[in-house]
Amino acid sequence: MWHLYQFPLCPFSRKVRLALAEKGVAVELKRVSPWLQDDEFADLNPAGQTPVLVEESKGIVLVDSIAIAEYFEEVLDKAPMIPGNAIARAEVRRLVQWFDGKLHTDVVAPLMQERMIKRLVNRDAPDTNVLRKAMTAANGHLDYIDYLLDHRRWLAGPALTLADLAAAAQLSVADYLGGLDWRGHKQTAGWYAGMKSRPSFRALLSERMEVIQPPAHYDKVDF
Amino acid sequence: MWHLYQFPLCPFSRKVRLALAEKGVAVELKRVSPWLQDDEFADLNPAGQTPVLVEESKGIVLVDSIAIAEYFEEVLDKAPMIPGNAIARAEVRRLVQWFDGKLHTDVVAPLMQERMIKRLVNRDAPDTNVLRKAMTAANGHLDYIDYLLDHRRWLAGPALTLADLAAAAQLSVADYLGGLDWRGHKQTAGWYAGMKSRPSFRALLSERMEVIQPPAHYDKVDF
Repeated sequence: MWHLYQFPLCPFSRKVRLALAEKGVAVELKRVSPWLQDDEFADLNPAGQTPVLVEESKGIVLVDSIAIAEYFEEVLDKAPMIPGNAIARAEVRRLVQWFDGKLHTDVVAPLMQERMIKRLVNRDAPDTNVLRKAMTAANGHLDYIDYLLDHRRWLAGPALTLADLAAAAQLSVADYLGGLDWRGHKQTAGWYAGMKSRPSFRALLSERMEVIQPPAHYDKVDF
Repeated sequence: MWHLYQFPLCPFSRKVRLALAEKGVAVELKRVSPWLQDDEFADLNPAGQTPVLVEESKGIVLVDSIAIAEYFEEVLDKAPMIPGNAIARAEVRRLVQWFDGKLHTDVVAPLMQERMIKRLVNRDAPDTNVLRKAMTAANGHLDYIDYLLDHRRWLAGPALTLADLAAAAQLSVADYLGGLDWRGHKQTAGWYAGMKSRPSFRALLSERMEVIQPPAHYDKVDF
C-alpha cells in the first residue's frame, strides 16, 4: 500500500493525487504539517516538503511531485499523463514547470503564507499588500490559461495531461484561499468546471483545512 | 543547428549545456539578458527565462531546462543522464528538483540578485545581510552534498547523472559570484574537481560575464 505524506492545501500533493487517481493507484493519506518541521518527516525528505510517497513493504520512498509523477508514467501504461511524441512531452513538462514554478511563486505561495501559515502558526493578520499583489498576478495567470485554451482543447494540446492537473491543483488552492476572481475568464472557468467534475477531483474538493473555510463557490462545478 | 538562448551565469542553461556536451549535441549560443525583458525573447518563452533551445529549420522550440533535458534523454541513447530503473530515475529527478529548487532559491538566486543584477541594472551595492544569509545556506547545502558523497560515488548513485550536472551548474555560478567557502567540504570539493576536469565543463569555466570577475580559484581544477 502506498502512503502519501501530504496536507489538504498542498498544491503539489494535489497534483500527485490527481495523477494517481486518474491512473487508478490507491493511496492512503498521511497528514503532515511541513511548517512544524517534524524530525520524522525531515528524515524522509531533507527538503521538508510534501508530497512524499512511501511503499513500506517494498522499501520505496519517492520524494518530489515531479519525480513521483514521472515514476508512475514509467511503471504504469494506464491513463498516460505525459502523452505523445518527445516534442509534445516537452510541452507538457514546460507547462508543469510553469504552473509549479511561476504560478505557485507568484500566486499560490503568497496566498498560503498570508492566509494559511500566518493563521495556523503566528495567528497574525495577512498583509493586504502581499494579497493584492498575488491576486493581480493571478489575473495575469488566468489570462495566460485563457490564451492557451483559445488554441487548444486542453492546456498542453488535444488531450488531458499532467499540465492540466498541475494547473488545476495550484488554482484549486488559490481558489480555496479566496485568491481568484473568475470574472472575465470564461475559457479557463469552463476548463476548470470540467476538471472539477472529474471523479479524481471530487475527493480533493470535499476536504477542508482546519480553521480555514473556502468561499461558497469553491467546490461547485457550476460557479 | 540548435540555438541555445542563455547568458554565461544562468545556472539552468549551464545544466543544459553540460548535458548536451556529454551527449555530443552541438549548440550555437545566443546571448540574452532576461532581466531586460526583451519582447522578442518573451515571444519565445512567456516566462521570460533561459534556457530556450530552438531548431529553426525544424520549427522546434524547447522551453525550460527540465523539459529540454528530458527531451534529449528520450531522443538520444548516448550518455544517459537519467539512467537506471524507475526508482533510480526518481532519485535523479528528486535531486535535480532539489538543486534547481532549493539550492537555487537559498543560495544562487540571492547571489545573482545582489552581485549580478544589482551590478548590471541598478549599479547598487549588494545587501550584505542577504549575502551573509546566502553564504550560510551554501554551507548547509555543501554539508548535504558531503553526506550524499559519503554514501555514493556520484550524487544520485554509482553513475554520473543529471543530478551531478544540476548541482555543478548551480554551484559553479555560486562559486563565480564568490559565494562558496570550500573549507571543511573535502568530499564535495573532490567531486567538484572531477566535474571541473570534464571537457563538458571546461568551456563553461572559461567564459566571463562582463564587469563581474570570478575569484582566482574559480576555473582551477586544483583549488
